[in-house]
Amino acid sequence: MTAADIAFVLVRPQSAGNIGAAARALKNMGFADLRLVAPEARNRTMAAAMAVHAADVLADARSFADLDAALIDCTVTVGTSCRPGLYRSGAEELHAAAPELCALARANRIAIIFGPEDHGLTNDELKRCQRLITIAAAPDYPSLNLAQAVMVVAYELRMAAGTAEQRGHAQTAFAPAAEVDAMMARMADALVAIGFLPEDNPDHIMFALRAILGRSGLTARELDILNGMARQMRWVAEGGHTTLDAKRRAGRRLR
Amino acid sequence: MTAADIAFVLVRPQSAGNIGAAARALKNMGFADLRLVAPEARNRTMAAAMAVHAADVLADARSFADLDAALIDCTVTVGTSCRPGLYRSGAEELHAAAPELCALARANRIAIIFGPEDHGLTNDELKRCQRLITIAAAPDYPSLNLAQAVMVVAYELRMAAGTAEQRGHAQTAFAPAAEVDAMMARMADALVAIGFLPEDNPDHIMFALRAILGRSGLTARELDILNGMARQMRWVAEGGHTTLDAKRRAGRRLR
Repeated sequence: MTAADIAFVLVRPQSAGNIGAAARALKNMGFADLRLVAPEARNRTMAAAMAVHAADVLADARSFADLDAALIDCTVTVGTSCRPGLYRSGAEELHAAAPELCALARANRIAIIFGPEDHGLTNDELKRCQRLITIAAAPDYPSLNLAQAVMVVAYELRMAAGTAEQRGHAQTAFAPAAEVDAMMARMADALVAIGFLPEDNPDHIMFALRAILGRSGLTARELDILNGMARQMRWVAEGGHTTLDAKRRAGRRLR
Repeated sequence: MTAADIAFVLVRPQSAGNIGAAARALKNMGFADLRLVAPEARNRTMAAAMAVHAADVLADARSFADLDAALIDCTVTVGTSCRPGLYRSGAEELHAAAPELCALARANRIAIIFGPEDHGLTNDELKRCQRLITIAAAPDYPSLNLAQAVMVVAYELRMAAGTAEQRGHAQTAFAPAAEVDAMMARMADALVAIGFLPEDNPDHIMFALRAILGRSGLTARELDILNGMARQMRWVAEGGHTTLDAKRRAGRRLR
């Protein structure tokens, strides 16, 4: 069992749109177990419209007559609440609880339980929950739309589970520092050649360019591009023909 | 300025329900600056129904004729994308980028830009974005509902804002996005002029340069330097005398 097996239980959902949107949110975040307890919403067209390409999750959603039936195979039951109150005072913040829930999910079937749109879980339902989590929302409007709450919980569990693919620049390998240095020397030479940098003191401006590129971090391809720019500048400075020269030769007026 | 001042920009939103749900998501997470670019959705009743108690955020949402107008006061522009593609390959994962964005928000007005429901941001719109973020969703269904995407970004920024204070690096204010765009246009023109970029398709390489400078972020002084570089390249390409020309005239051998 893994975090992907966590069950999302909607108790008496009133909006078919929310059921469909919850199905989509689960599929977006790599979950598939959607359970409905005595759903009041019946509009299948609306649910399907909001599920979009999560029709499979929606079709596989099981309905149960009561919460006990929905939780029959679960060993860890987690209620969600946005309100303070008698049975809610021990709620953990989702962000803090998520890593432990993911760890527990390796050996346990976990149910995350969401109450109906208007008033949330009843006190009796909250008593069926071994633990409570809350989303750290803004104090002046802490009540999330049901499907939005499902999304935030699913997103946080996905992040905590470490199943997110490693994407983005932070995970990209940068070009070797020596190659970047060689490019900077070539660029300095080119910028002197085109008369942008003073030959006797190019360092002042080059320091600023180094700072820009240093903050950015360069991939091998990006390094190639900057090397190409420097070579072309040098070539033009040495009298190489340019696009503009060609146009000039063709008799076209410039500017 | 703080992370709470981050602007959320919806480009050509098609669903009034999503606009309302986005307003609610922002208020839930402590944000208030919702901007709409040429909204196609007009159903105020539907938007209000989804906004619920975020009627104030919805009422304060400003509409703009185009993306440029919406970004006029922003210095850090961040596009969102769920698709891989030519102009999207450098996208950072939201969870990894959020702490830095919150740190930047102390000295910069940041815009997070969301495309329309059906196809997301166009390539031209992506080019207006200095950096790209993506939500680490499940590979087999990575496309989130628009309002859900707004919620996940808002939630992650709220979480990261709580830890951003601990980040040590001092933040400087960046140059206005419109001025950076003007510099990039000038640079593209210069790089075409010196024959480095093909005149008929400069975008491919320019996108890579945009990505480098977008990750880096430019101060006003750095922007001046790059503008100067572009002007000098253009001048040389048009036949302006260079350091090398002077040496040549002086009879010195080159290389």
